[in-house]
Amino acid sequence: MMIAVDAAGGENAPREIVKGAIKAAQEYEVDIALVGNKAILHVLAGRQIRKLNLTIIDAKEVIAPTESPMKAVKSKPNSSIVVGTNLVKDGVASAFVSAGNTGAVLVSSLLSLGKIKGVERPALGSFIDLTPATPFLLIDSGANAECRPSYLVQFAHLGSIYVKNLLDIEAPRVRLLSTGEEETKGNRLAQESYSLLKKTKLNFVGSIEGQDISRAIADVIVTDGFTGNIVLKTIEGLGDTFLGAARQIGYIVATASHLRGRALLQEIGVGSWAKKADYREYGGACLLGVNGTIIAAHGRSQAKAIKNAIVLAKQTVERNICQIIKEENYEQAD
Amino acid sequence: MMIAVDAAGGENAPREIVKGAIKAAQEYEVDIALVGNKAILHVLAGRQIRKLNLTIIDAKEVIAPTESPMKAVKSKPNSSIVVGTNLVKDGVASAFVSAGNTGAVLVSSLLSLGKIKGVERPALGSFIDLTPATPFLLIDSGANAECRPSYLVQFAHLGSIYVKNLLDIEAPRVRLLSTGEEETKGNRLAQESYSLLKKTKLNFVGSIEGQDISRAIADVIVTDGFTGNIVLKTIEGLGDTFLGAARQIGYIVATASHLRGRALLQEIGVGSWAKKADYREYGGACLLGVNGTIIAAHGRSQAKAIKNAIVLAKQTVERNICQIIKEENYEQAD
Repeated sequence: MMIAVDAAGGENAPREIVKGAIKAAQEYEVDIALVGNKAILHVLAGRQIRKLNLTIIDAKEVIAPTESPMKAVKSKPNSSIVVGTNLVKDGVASAFVSAGNTGAVLVSSLLSLGKIKGVERPALGSFIDLTPATPFLLIDSGANAECRPSYLVQFAHLGSIYVKNLLDIEAPRVRLLSTGEEETKGNRLAQESYSLLKKTKLNFVGSIEGQDISRAIADVIVTDGFTGNIVLKTIEGLGDTFLGAARQIGYIVATASHLRGRALLQEIGVGSWAKKADYREYGGACLLGVNGTIIAAHGRSQAKAIKNAIVLAKQTVERNICQIIKEENYEQAD
Repeated sequence: MMIAVDAAGGENAPREIVKGAIKAAQEYEVDIALVGNKAILHVLAGRQIRKLNLTIIDAKEVIAPTESPMKAVKSKPNSSIVVGTNLVKDGVASAFVSAGNTGAVLVSSLLSLGKIKGVERPALGSFIDLTPATPFLLIDSGANAECRPSYLVQFAHLGSIYVKNLLDIEAPRVRLLSTGEEETKGNRLAQESYSLLKKTKLNFVGSIEGQDISRAIADVIVTDGFTGNIVLKTIEGLGDTFLGAARQIGYIVATASHLRGRALLQEIGVGSWAKKADYREYGGACLLGVNGTIIAAHGRSQAKAIKNAIVLAKQTVERNICQIIKEENYEQAD
């Protein structure tokens, strides 16, 4: 299985991307194609290219994070993002991982791979892991700022299929993000989506409010891409704040008590919690509903996050998610 | 100054409400009117009634948290919420504090007090305090699930007036909650609100993404009531999660090290941080734009939160916020 990795995308490209890709190739049985400036990649990857059998694919152009996605994708056919999605389209790569301009990754995936038949809008599904229990999938975490109720129902379907087949949860509990538990709460979109979700065969168990997100009462949390993106990033931001506080405490305790304070803290409590709240641990978001496996990693991704994104891509391909969506979606359309 | 307190509203009513009101009366120079079941309140408040000169106002009916606000307010004229807002309307009380059904508090305030001339939609402003710097105001934190761009501009005005006059910040930095920094990011509501906000005389400094909420780069964060409510509650929920982790760590360190671990932690690091992330410390949300001072406290409020909500009401009245909104809004309408 070959996974194409955008070596030019994200704040820490190309160095951290190459590091992460090398780690993934070393620790997991996965062939990597690095997409970016050939000359630079040869210098950065060096001897690892032959050692790990890395493929280098030249892509001279770069799409900046602030560029307008549609315009950038159309005007830069040799950008790492367009080249990467085309590798998936042409069957050269099984998946593409990019920490670059998320909008451009979406547009390029749609133009190159197309939507799976019956899918109105592909959506980004992000795993969030805050509790000792299993993580949940937040969908849509940012692909569709403007949504109709029917989109949210489809996000619920896509998310259920993903969680079921990736995490082996037989009937994932689906909840709708809203401002109250009752069907009458929330905005019009939430209210209408609730009444549609009730009628599906999904394991829809009601709404969920913000304060209950970390209570492990949902396997799939459905919302529009605007709200989802803000919630995801709020969690990330608070995670960073907690992490900073936790580190400071560990340091102060270690200094003040002359004990093994910091090590102790990391071993027992803060360590595992903070690790979970840290986006650097996440693998990124999977674009569900397109004809191929595309993982949008965090723009601030460092080597570890890139490695994890590659592992998520690998699992998504191995579990045949794309094919299952095609089949199940076809069934639903019948 | 008399502040009316809904003794029947919220999960911990009436006991915690009465406790909080008594604390406020003891620690601050404020006259309290407890609104609720007279007989019960006499038993709960006991000797404090004479000692602190508490007023007991009978309200036989209670509006449950799950009741439809409009229906409940219309059918229960003797409910603590309707009686409480009428006390403000009639000039008996300077403010009303309720931890009851927020929707019913909004509806009753609108019906009883009315909107300030020129205000399209009153909004809930909630102070959030996550950093060592000053807190910021999130508006709308839940009054209007469905919003137009013009509403958000007005929320920005209301929020700026509140922060300026309550916290003595001369030109509060206003930011729009969105999914990117550029004007073109976000949903249609965010995009159109951005272009309107640019044209105001407010100190509008751009958008803010979820991950930057705790970075102290805004004094007022503007959003619709659906997104705002979800973000507020997400922060509360994560605060609780972190608090739990922090307490556990404090306990383990104290046990394992036989040191003053817990006390140490509380004194130096986790204590102050956790305090900030704990909704029990917040005073509640102020309903800005109605003809009177109304504070909607958290439904899970315990005595401390109620006390703080009463203090917020007191400050809001003392700083003459309602009158200033009337004057400044009139100026803007000119």
